[in-house]
Amino acid sequence: MPEPQAASPRTPDATRRSERSRRAIFDAALALVGEAGYARTTIEGIAARAGVGKQTIYRWWPSKAAVLLDAFLDLAGQAGEEGAGGLPDTGDLAADLKLVLRATVDELNDPRFDVPTRALTAEGVVDPDLGARFVERLLEPQLQLYVERLTAAQEAGHVRPGVDPRIALELFVGPLTHRWLLRTRPLTHAYADELVEYALHGIAPR
Amino acid sequence: MPEPQAASPRTPDATRRSERSRRAIFDAALALVGEAGYARTTIEGIAARAGVGKQTIYRWWPSKAAVLLDAFLDLAGQAGEEGAGGLPDTGDLAADLKLVLRATVDELNDPRFDVPTRALTAEGVVDPDLGARFVERLLEPQLQLYVERLTAAQEAGHVRPGVDPRIALELFVGPLTHRWLLRTRPLTHAYADELVEYALHGIAPR
Repeated sequence: MPEPQAASPRTPDATRRSERSRRAIFDAALALVGEAGYARTTIEGIAARAGVGKQTIYRWWPSKAAVLLDAFLDLAGQAGEEGAGGLPDTGDLAADLKLVLRATVDELNDPRFDVPTRALTAEGVVDPDLGARFVERLLEPQLQLYVERLTAAQEAGHVRPGVDPRIALELFVGPLTHRWLLRTRPLTHAYADELVEYALHGIAPR
Repeated sequence: MPEPQAASPRTPDATRRSERSRRAIFDAALALVGEAGYARTTIEGIAARAGVGKQTIYRWWPSKAAVLLDAFLDLAGQAGEEGAGGLPDTGDLAADLKLVLRATVDELNDPRFDVPTRALTAEGVVDPDLGARFVERLLEPQLQLYVERLTAAQEAGHVRPGVDPRIALELFVGPLTHRWLLRTRPLTHAYADELVEYALHGIAPR
């Protein structure tokens, strides 16, 4: 991510102005993608909406894809629950996963997250290059947090030996994403809880 | 679905010609959606590619959405494994689900199915009305086949009492769709098998 304040020595005021511009550019980029779709979002449009010159954007980012990627990384960072510290680990795997999935449900139901992310995802579905870039930079790092949490649970004896955490996480993330993208049924906390129970314990009799 | 041959008494030749036109229209519609996306597919474009007059299409379907819906229903019907007879029921739930999920993997890896279905799904992701229509007519009937199979398994004692089949099916369909749409990892038979094992038996120690 560009760090404009690190590019050259600045006064505190200049740093604040840079941060304000950066914020305005991200907000404009996400709003435009949500309204017009990825393909019809342009650097010109983002600049106009953010109230900055096109050159301000080009000084920090080489392309539309680059500024959008940073805007989405920033948005994901705001969501918070998938922070640098990883998923919660209280030792109670079911409780921790319910907390994470409930937070994800809230995020997916929040228009500020839903609208731009939906537009980006739809574009990635039909544009393999774009899809691959965003999966690599945005989605896979989030999925790796599940891998880490499930691996820790496995070491603690709460996940069966032999279970592949990279596959197991899809039992949680896959159904949630399916409901969100295709809008088959409501995304609720009760659903998140039930999903965790089913995925942890399976649906066959024990 | 329109049944041109039932609209009026026809000679065998006229019926064959109608069926050929219908087939050409479906093929053209799916090819165009795959190449140009849903929004840029038009009745005019379908007619030109199918080698029929626009009026031939309008005689049978009122709108682009209607002809595309029938084309996708026809495509799903061709795929076969989700036939009118429901999912296989040999009494071995794991084996039956592996068979179905492997067939779905093959279908999702087949460009004839993948390309148009991907384009349609992407459009439904950002167009709630279109999405709702296709979920109701195309996806939900397929999901109901899982509900029926899981309900039968529940009655046979192979699924825990209290498990909601409409949620349980998402443990199979959700991860598969997630991999397919976002292309996170390869869609293979081995993955389908592992998914069935995890979803049936859970990931926690038994």
